[in-house]
Amino acid sequence: MKANIIIRLKKNILDPQGKAVHHALSDMQFGDVEEVRIGRFVEMVFNHNNREQAEEETRKICDKLLANPIMEVYDYTIED
Amino acid sequence: MKANIIIRLKKNILDPQGKAVHHALSDMQFGDVEEVRIGRFVEMVFNHNNREQAEEETRKICDKLLANPIMEVYDYTIED
Repeated sequence: MKANIIIRLKKNILDPQGKAVHHALSDMQFGDVEEVRIGRFVEMVFNHNNREQAEEETRKICDKLLANPIMEVYDYTIED
Repeated sequence: MKANIIIRLKKNILDPQGKAVHHALSDMQFGDVEEVRIGRFVEMVFNHNNREQAEEETRKICDKLLANPIMEVYDYTIED
């Protein structure tokens, strides 16, 4: 199984990296862009085909290692 | 419109950050994980509702600023 995880900053947390990209886009004449927020994308490949187990492990790994629960939220999908 | 962009390293490019996470997971007894690859996730909000224009701008912005075409590939979805 494979997990695709998206980790993003909570809405109320300032994102200086996103602000910097937004600023660069304004300089490059992409004035249509109103806001940019930057997060992380993590792919994890499991050595088994048990979807439930992959989901449970993905949640545990996000909670314990990948995401900072104070500042971040995560979503994931599991695929074969 | 809003663009959700995933940028990942090409398959043949070494990912030291992913290796470090994989190593940490082994230490934490998550031995079921075979491979970890880390990428970036970018959300861009446009100040208009023209889907075609948003797609075109997203591609241009990825090509010119967000992704390194030598080492990275990107995918995106556009939503209302």
